Amino acid sequence: MPTSAELKMTTAGKTHWVGVDLGGTKILAGVFDSKYECVSRMKISTKADRGPAGVIERVVRCVKDALDECDLSPADIGGIGVGAPGAIDSAKGRVIFAPNLGWKDVPLKAELERELGVPVSVENDCKLHTLGVYEVELESKPRDVIGVFLGTGIGAGIIIDGKPFRGFNGSAGEVGHMVIDVNGPVCGCGNRGCFEALASRRAIFRTIHAAVQQGQKTLLVDMLGKDLEDMRSGDLRKAVRRGDRFVGEVIDRSAHHTGIAVGNLINLFNPEVIVLGGGIIEQLEHEMLPIIEKVAREHALPGTDEGIQIVATRLGDDAGTTGGAVLARRAKT
Amino acid sequence: MPTSAELKMTTAGKTHWVGVDLGGTKILAGVFDSKYECVSRMKISTKADRGPAGVIERVVRCVKDALDECDLSPADIGGIGVGAPGAIDSAKGRVIFAPNLGWKDVPLKAELERELGVPVSVENDCKLHTLGVYEVELESKPRDVIGVFLGTGIGAGIIIDGKPFRGFNGSAGEVGHMVIDVNGPVCGCGNRGCFEALASRRAIFRTIHAAVQQGQKTLLVDMLGKDLEDMRSGDLRKAVRRGDRFVGEVIDRSAHHTGIAVGNLINLFNPEVIVLGGGIIEQLEHEMLPIIEKVAREHALPGTDEGIQIVATRLGDDAGTTGGAVLARRAKT
Repeated sequence: MPTSAELKMTTAGKTHWVGVDLGGTKILAGVFDSKYECVSRMKISTKADRGPAGVIERVVRCVKDALDECDLSPADIGGIGVGAPGAIDSAKGRVIFAPNLGWKDVPLKAELERELGVPVSVENDCKLHTLGVYEVELESKPRDVIGVFLGTGIGAGIIIDGKPFRGFNGSAGEVGHMVIDVNGPVCGCGNRGCFEALASRRAIFRTIHAAVQQGQKTLLVDMLGKDLEDMRSGDLRKAVRRGDRFVGEVIDRSAHHTGIAVGNLINLFNPEVIVLGGGIIEQLEHEMLPIIEKVAREHALPGTDEGIQIVATRLGDDAGTTGGAVLARRAKT
Repeated sequence: MPTSAELKMTTAGKTHWVGVDLGGTKILAGVFDSKYECVSRMKISTKADRGPAGVIERVVRCVKDALDECDLSPADIGGIGVGAPGAIDSAKGRVIFAPNLGWKDVPLKAELERELGVPVSVENDCKLHTLGVYEVELESKPRDVIGVFLGTGIGAGIIIDGKPFRGFNGSAGEVGHMVIDVNGPVCGCGNRGCFEALASRRAIFRTIHAAVQQGQKTLLVDMLGKDLEDMRSGDLRKAVRRGDRFVGEVIDRSAHHTGIAVGNLINLFNPEVIVLGGGIIEQLEHEMLPIIEKVAREHALPGTDEGIQIVATRLGDDAGTTGGAVLARRAKT
């Protein structure tokens, strides 16, 4: 097995990089050229129940398939950047703790380098999403950027002086567990009123399920049955656009809480750009972004939000894989 | 009037620097040697009602008196660093907005340089407090530090990579206006449930006044009369230590809210050290710090607070003037 140093020596002059977004339900791999154009993408399910070895085998296959799709092989690429959900030791390339995968202390970098023979970098998924957005969408290259991603949970990436900001233990950016309502609902982390317990997909679904059980009428029941089986963010969008006032109010409340969280981030970090993304924003940007922006600016101290942009990413699913390619390329140079 | 560049040229080889902490009620000036030992300090009242020109005249006098006390003159010092409460344009040395002084757009640097003939740097007071603590108390020189100061209001300073972090508009670190209770009491800023509206001296005093008006018994009434005239942080300490349960509970709640705010800061910034200071902490550290630390660690995601220190500064009133001297010296080199 080659060492990382030996791997690096073989990557000079390579023109493509691979980004992998390893999530609890799906694995995305994208092959990017030196302009960060995605020349090939592949998506397979994660099958986390197969354990780390089984999932890593699937990551390897997903990367190889994405490369084969554009007639490349691992030998043609400069490196791979992988985003995984949870706490990451990026220096060692280990996944310390990833509850959505059921992983504890998995040497992801070493395993993938052994299987694929190219340098691998590993980072927290939301940090990688933000890095992708930063590199590809923010042409002015602002110094400080925060990306906030609303999906099943809520995560973020912080960029300070153009570089991912990690903090002492590497966990900076856990915005999902910023308390904004001390008396609010209990969060998965055990505390009350975390941003994630108020505005994530899980929180929104929990609110809707509870109301429906208590007899609340909503188009979602007509669409999905009274158990709301297999409900997705897209169903919320459909219900709202068909005039479902109840779902509309739930989404408005989520947007309001997100606005308060973004206002807090402006007061604390005063970043030049705040980018919003994730499945919830992707489906409901039209409904949520105006509320988020209004509430955030009301909560920023007067004048301190001047010139600060609050925008939604257009990268969608590509944010994570793009960030992976950026990470791989930065690791190389 | 010499230009800033001309002033800088005359400061080579100087061995003393002056720090000024310009507050709403008092002006502190300290003269520091190259080891940041305070060789002379002076304190006079601000008399903000005399307007910017009157206050600046008092700052000049305070600096000259502090220098005279240790047999120095302005010609002997390398520069002056001034901390002022509010929004500061540190590049231009202007106080943009300082409600506690009643100032709007005051060219403090230019005025002081004209009067004193030495280079002057201006910064937000809490940023300066943190810089002083960082330079003098934190010998290990951690990369990332946050100083949180509980006084009449609540402010903070953020140090990232050893340097004050300012953000896009210079207002980073407004922790006092981080919302932690969306349904909480209205803050001076107009929003609800800001940290400052829950845990500052103003918030504590408001709670006590309201309860006393509704018939609450407390030793504070015996000590100060039923109007609680001229109540200070030290009176709270005395009441608590004499066994006043009501005041004890108010202080516990303030500490609890501060713990939640510090927990948020750990989740967001993951700094190596969080330093607490300000009049409230100075008087009530013994009562509050254990609660703050316990609640903060309960709110940090498991494992992410490992190795992170939560401490109180010992600098007291000297924090601001020390920070001023550090700022002046850094500006010079």
